Amino acid sequence: MINAMIVTIQCKDQVGLVAAISGLLARENINIVSMREFVDTEDKRFFARIELQSTPDSSALTRMLAQVLPEGSGIEVRPQTRKRLVVLVTKEHHCLSDLLIRHHFKNAPFEIAAVIGNYDVLRDITGRFGVPYVQVSHEGRTKEEFEAELTRELAKHRFDYVVLAKFMRILSDPFVAPLEGRVINIHHSFLPAFIGAHPYKQAYERGVKLIGATAHFVTHVLDEGPIITQQSIPVDHSQSVHDMIRAGREIETSVLAQAVRQVCEDRVFIHKNRTIVFA
Amino acid sequence: MINAMIVTIQCKDQVGLVAAISGLLARENINIVSMREFVDTEDKRFFARIELQSTPDSSALTRMLAQVLPEGSGIEVRPQTRKRLVVLVTKEHHCLSDLLIRHHFKNAPFEIAAVIGNYDVLRDITGRFGVPYVQVSHEGRTKEEFEAELTRELAKHRFDYVVLAKFMRILSDPFVAPLEGRVINIHHSFLPAFIGAHPYKQAYERGVKLIGATAHFVTHVLDEGPIITQQSIPVDHSQSVHDMIRAGREIETSVLAQAVRQVCEDRVFIHKNRTIVFA
Amino acid sequence: MINAMIVTIQCKDQVGLVAAISGLLARENINIVSMREFVDTEDKRFFARIELQSTPDSSALTRMLAQVLPEGSGIEVRPQTRKRLVVLVTKEHHCLSDLLIRHHFKNAPFEIAAVIGNYDVLRDITGRFGVPYVQVSHEGRTKEEFEAELTRELAKHRFDYVVLAKFMRILSDPFVAPLEGRVINIHHSFLPAFIGAHPYKQAYERGVKLIGATAHFVTHVLDEGPIITQQSIPVDHSQSVHDMIRAGREIETSVLAQAVRQVCEDRVFIHKNRTIVFA
Amino acid sequence: MINAMIVTIQCKDQVGLVAAISGLLARENINIVSMREFVDTEDKRFFARIELQSTPDSSALTRMLAQVLPEGSGIEVRPQTRKRLVVLVTKEHHCLSDLLIRHHFKNAPFEIAAVIGNYDVLRDITGRFGVPYVQVSHEGRTKEEFEAELTRELAKHRFDYVVLAKFMRILSDPFVAPLEGRVINIHHSFLPAFIGAHPYKQAYERGVKLIGATAHFVTHVLDEGPIITQQSIPVDHSQSVHDMIRAGREIETSVLAQAVRQVCEDRVFIHKNRTIVFA
Repeated sequence: MINAMIVTIQCKDQVGLVAAISGLLARENINIVSMREFVDTEDKRFFARIELQSTPDSSALTRMLAQVLPEGSGIEVRPQTRKRLVVLVTKEHHCLSDLLIRHHFKNAPFEIAAVIGNYDVLRDITGRFGVPYVQVSHEGRTKEEFEAELTRELAKHRFDYVVLAKFMRILSDPFVAPLEGRVINIHHSFLPAFIGAHPYKQAYERGVKLIGATAHFVTHVLDEGPIITQQSIPVDHSQSVHDMIRAGREIETSVLAQAVRQVCEDRVFIHKNRTIVFA
Repeated sequence: MINAMIVTIQCKDQVGLVAAISGLLARENINIVSMREFVDTEDKRFFARIELQSTPDSSALTRMLAQVLPEGSGIEVRPQTRKRLVVLVTKEHHCLSDLLIRHHFKNAPFEIAAVIGNYDVLRDITGRFGVPYVQVSHEGRTKEEFEAELTRELAKHRFDYVVLAKFMRILSDPFVAPLEGRVINIHHSFLPAFIGAHPYKQAYERGVKLIGATAHFVTHVLDEGPIITQQSIPVDHSQSVHDMIRAGREIETSVLAQAVRQVCEDRVFIHKNRTIVFA
Repeated sequence: MINAMIVTIQCKDQVGLVAAISGLLARENINIVSMREFVDTEDKRFFARIELQSTPDSSALTRMLAQVLPEGSGIEVRPQTRKRLVVLVTKEHHCLSDLLIRHHFKNAPFEIAAVIGNYDVLRDITGRFGVPYVQVSHEGRTKEEFEAELTRELAKHRFDYVVLAKFMRILSDPFVAPLEGRVINIHHSFLPAFIGAHPYKQAYERGVKLIGATAHFVTHVLDEGPIITQQSIPVDHSQSVHDMIRAGREIETSVLAQAVRQVCEDRVFIHKNRTIVFA
Repeated sequence: MINAMIVTIQCKDQVGLVAAISGLLARENINIVSMREFVDTEDKRFFARIELQSTPDSSALTRMLAQVLPEGSGIEVRPQTRKRLVVLVTKEHHCLSDLLIRHHFKNAPFEIAAVIGNYDVLRDITGRFGVPYVQVSHEGRTKEEFEAELTRELAKHRFDYVVLAKFMRILSDPFVAPLEGRVINIHHSFLPAFIGAHPYKQAYERGVKLIGATAHFVTHVLDEGPIITQQSIPVDHSQSVHDMIRAGREIETSVLAQAVRQVCEDRVFIHKNRTIVFA
């Protein structure tokens, strides 16, 4: 997977786009490993992800593509390298542990630059994998002060994405805005059901027969950002809230891992409040 | 499956209930095929479903059980016979067709006494299976008049349950109240997500990655009754609202069939706004 | 869905195929609704399915495509019309009933030209939908005689595919060979597990925790043809063989319906013993 | 979960067993948190798992139960404590890592006494969690010598179960026999499909549309022991053997974790070649 090049394109749709792109690549003798495209016919938007076998000069190729594509097209040509993550956590370990294991064995398309926690409880597990851990406490501070320190900490790291791996503080609009499209959250329900706090308790009380988890990009509206991945599992009357929380952890872990992988492999496009995922 | 007896019990929990029930049955030399019990420890409620091999006198057994169970216990002893359904429909055929096929081949624990539609479009398919069809139009009438005629029509039939098989009219509290616990609806979303009209359109616009269907008992609050069964299926960006509707029909059909079967086999208990389902 | 045109291409892979195809369509001013392609890199085979908005002259387009594609390419340009099926059955009704309902309401990409049964039990349900039913009994005949009559009956109908909807006779190589790639079977197990007779009994005895169903093309080797669709559902120790059979019917019905839809929408390519399915 | 008592019973079925058991517990004033029972009607075997709130004297209770149950009954009364595991591995880390994380955070019903690997590659990850790692190489030895050393190593530890977490050596009958019912393996296919080596390659070549994983007890016949848990996930033509291996790892991890949890919570009974799992 590593060692190829990925081209992603998002632009206004028009007749002949696939011909223009594939014709250019054929003329330049660049071999396509795989090409996925999608047209949002309602909004007349075109999305494509192309995996190239060779590794041409990326700025040259970007320029050539710009010439055959509509003005204002979003074009990215990138070598397929591991993305860098900063992971934000609170006290629950399951999502973080899973990401650390994947990081450690280098069989995922990312590496973890640092972990920031508002408590200190996950310093130990992070340290076992040689990843830097910083505590930024929210206690005795205003949200502004807390987020200002988070921002300062983030600024110390080179990263592509921020992953909220069961980070239980709500982030304000001014904090999120400069990172829009780069912050991935795991929510422990099947959104849009059970927005907000204690979704398993809400699910138990509503008597649902399925529970779920949702990975989504964070925007300024709580739990309303573009959804990347969702999974659900059956539950029944015999499961207490506690049982649901335990069962839910398994899919939270799985959903977040899948979403982070897809984003880091440049498979996910954001358009308005929805995602296009070339799975 | 037919030809046995089913005992269902719902009562206050106390120590020794299983011993009391199973002791009584052993003394009476009644063989248990299967016994399922559940205690809601929070509310201290006990629920049991017992399948008996023999068919004792049901009122005698009810009396004997009442003597060993707490006062006010809900006890039902019934031969396992097909339940009788009245099915209410509008224009969509998929749930009705499925129920008619199961009725026709007698391999489900129910038979359909009649179908009532607020249009005439499903008269033909119903007639092909020799089941009576009555049109009760809502047009040019108040909701009161419409529901009064529905009630008159229902009164002509002996039935155990009313099944809303994509019946697209909202029923009022006075209509539903006398039937509480006996009206089963299929809602075309994963409740509590997308309550109300056009759930697939809502799902599409929210950009979810799973859609679902929910079978539930109808109460006076729209789409808020006790849930019996839910299923979900994955969707992606390439699916239009129309595609989701088409895919959704398959799980609506499946979920409603499963819920109706479970209810008709006396596997479903209602407690507050939740169900206990001995699947 | 109906009223567009579908192009399917299967050929040797080479650089520039997508450019050649999409360039041709752009030059001819033919709008692509969707295009899916796949390269089997091991075998260097290229597969594509293209949905066109307009309906150009199909033989002219086939000729033009042949000029830009490698020699020996399989090219089909077809209006998206309902395919015609002949359905073969024995005694079990569930798959047939489902197909008849879909046929009747014309919301599937097929129509049923005729049903042939080796018993008479499914004549009644078939007749209720106005579809011709022919009994071809296997009793008191050699397999050659039986299949000869089947062949004569099939010859009376114009059909695209033969669907074995729980047809419980094994068909011989000479019968199947002339129909290769056009006969779809539903096998009541998760192939290649439990090949042959009584798969649910085999599954029960092996103590599996999942059962499944498989729709596949029929070839001369029993249950070994290219797989189109598979689904599985969980089972547990409490389910008897009879319970598994009942639960299995639901997925058999669902899997066969899905496979027939995909084949009839020209989404399925056969390559060696595998299928490419543009779902 | 911890701090209660678990009673498991396996015996010949007869009328009145539930009454006898629950009557005894009621007389002794022992509160039942949950009781699950199952009768294999074909073999006339009775299985029960009872969770007690209080912690009576376990040998006294065992004696009393023996008096009311048929002769030869298997009765176990155990405090619900963490089981001790020895984990055998080869080179793949994913199942081991997952078990180590669960061990480390003590939120699973087991602890890992030691890890034994036939290579040295997983020593590092094991050591990061403070768990002893021993290498027992198979190289340059006969199977007898290899297994003799394994047996010597196992003898150094107090353990309840041996978990083969992607241990890629086939164990001989003499090695397994004394441990029968105590060795859990994860097989990377949906058994009984693709027994033996390279199941993903077999699955790819057969062109299946689902892949799976199976956790089972090890007996003397390769991959034929009683199945505890199975899961499957969809695959399609676009996935190479390598992609299937990667996707399969996720369910292997999940299936093994689930099976080990169920076994360690005394939810799994073995009867002939099948399991009863009170999930």
